[in-house]
Amino acid sequence: MSVDLAARLAAWKTLVDARLDAWLAPKESFPQPLFDAMRYSLFAGGKRIRPAFAFAAAEAAGGAEDEALPFAAVIEMIHTYSLIHDDLPAMDDDDLRRGKPTNHVLYGEGIAILAGDALLTDAFGWLAGPDVAAHHPPARVLRILGEIARAAGSCGMVAGQALDLTSEGKDVDLPTLEFLHTHKTGALIRASTVVGGLAAGATEVDLGILSSYAERVGLAFQIADDVLDVEGETAELGKPVGSDESLSKATYPAVIGMGESKRRAAELMESAVACLAPFGARGEVLAALARFVVERRH
Amino acid sequence: MSVDLAARLAAWKTLVDARLDAWLAPKESFPQPLFDAMRYSLFAGGKRIRPAFAFAAAEAAGGAEDEALPFAAVIEMIHTYSLIHDDLPAMDDDDLRRGKPTNHVLYGEGIAILAGDALLTDAFGWLAGPDVAAHHPPARVLRILGEIARAAGSCGMVAGQALDLTSEGKDVDLPTLEFLHTHKTGALIRASTVVGGLAAGATEVDLGILSSYAERVGLAFQIADDVLDVEGETAELGKPVGSDESLSKATYPAVIGMGESKRRAAELMESAVACLAPFGARGEVLAALARFVVERRH
Repeated sequence: MSVDLAARLAAWKTLVDARLDAWLAPKESFPQPLFDAMRYSLFAGGKRIRPAFAFAAAEAAGGAEDEALPFAAVIEMIHTYSLIHDDLPAMDDDDLRRGKPTNHVLYGEGIAILAGDALLTDAFGWLAGPDVAAHHPPARVLRILGEIARAAGSCGMVAGQALDLTSEGKDVDLPTLEFLHTHKTGALIRASTVVGGLAAGATEVDLGILSSYAERVGLAFQIADDVLDVEGETAELGKPVGSDESLSKATYPAVIGMGESKRRAAELMESAVACLAPFGARGEVLAALARFVVERRH
Repeated sequence: MSVDLAARLAAWKTLVDARLDAWLAPKESFPQPLFDAMRYSLFAGGKRIRPAFAFAAAEAAGGAEDEALPFAAVIEMIHTYSLIHDDLPAMDDDDLRRGKPTNHVLYGEGIAILAGDALLTDAFGWLAGPDVAAHHPPARVLRILGEIARAAGSCGMVAGQALDLTSEGKDVDLPTLEFLHTHKTGALIRASTVVGGLAAGATEVDLGILSSYAERVGLAFQIADDVLDVEGETAELGKPVGSDESLSKATYPAVIGMGESKRRAAELMESAVACLAPFGARGEVLAALARFVVERRH
């Protein structure tokens, strides 16, 4: 049976966008530039790939979309904060993302930093709020919150970004590069998938499968991104081709070559799909998602 | 009965510092500059005033120090993140804090931003971890986590900082100034106090008293800070005198005058102490703390 992944992605994006739109509805007392800056990056055309991992994992574990939705939305807020901060002049110094001006270009660096801070903090606030409590017992919410915080914090995403920053202009070896990628992007993709399973009340065995799958996909996703950054065109990516390379940043093609990078991404992706065997037909959407994110970068 | 507040503050600081030191113990895989930057600001001489509010509130509500400790430590992590980000060139652009170089001066802007991000994210991670679960049921932890996230996020501290940033060089009126102060510093002081109560299993009535007290103290604290910024000396404060004024920033002395600012701070402080009457002797430490933070700025 073939999966109409494009339709699923579109439906999930609609769900997540509606939830984020409701959460970030205008408030009168809100300092307007901060609010505008938060909404700007949140609705700047993201494909909602991390929420898709959460929804697909929930489905594989026999759960419903409703159960995963607030967690998917929260993870997208955290992903968005990380993009705003990564684009800052003191970090990757990018003026464009997805063909649009980056947050600090439009709102200034100060508000961009604060918009990121607010998205991150509010994400945890929503996790502790009534939307989540309506569907899940407190102990489960805390476990999910812990997964997300560990994936995003000093032992996860921030560690990867810090290593990326301190590696600029240096030759890095393969273990360093793998640490960088598994932390900077892999950790949150893994958490999205595991959290989708937790939202559906998955067994520990199922959670282990989801984690193994997501670790492989997360790394394959980032290798594919590195490859596309070299091969891609500005118009398609919405950022200058080779912008990472021009900073002498660590990428797979630079360290192990183009052909080997492609082979490695494909191998990891197939290995991820193989992990899903115990799910049978329920794992088909996760398998399609793995192929999608590795074969085409968003 | 008189309270030896100095001894209490010293004992609480020791407790909080030990907990933070244990939480942020060196890890081999950690990117070293990020870890160093996190620890640097965390142990840069903070007086742990927010933890003191949590401990004193727990005591007023009949609780033990152990119960409040992890929350006090988490709040100090969030306060520290906010200082690191506030000092950035794109924000207040301060090179010194408490007489020492600010985080970005030592570690660079990129690592400073990430150190703040990591402290904020890890704070929520610790709330969801075993240290807290050992003393508190999950539902209570989520309520506390929600209080902290709301106080720190887009409807709390970040809103105040954003308003501060967009008010630079403008004449602000008293309501705007009050919004600024009650959000930028007041919200987290209020949360510290309420969370101390929640940690001790306070009744809703007691929580209401703690909240009323803390709202008044929080504003008085910030007015006193404004006053001291004008009157103080560089050596005492560890930052250039009048650094806020040189940015034409909104302060109480600038808007309502020096004498009226002092009168207002004292009035709010007395009103805060009056709120504590129902606690009787159990409220004495909170009362002493209110006097301490308003009469002497840290």
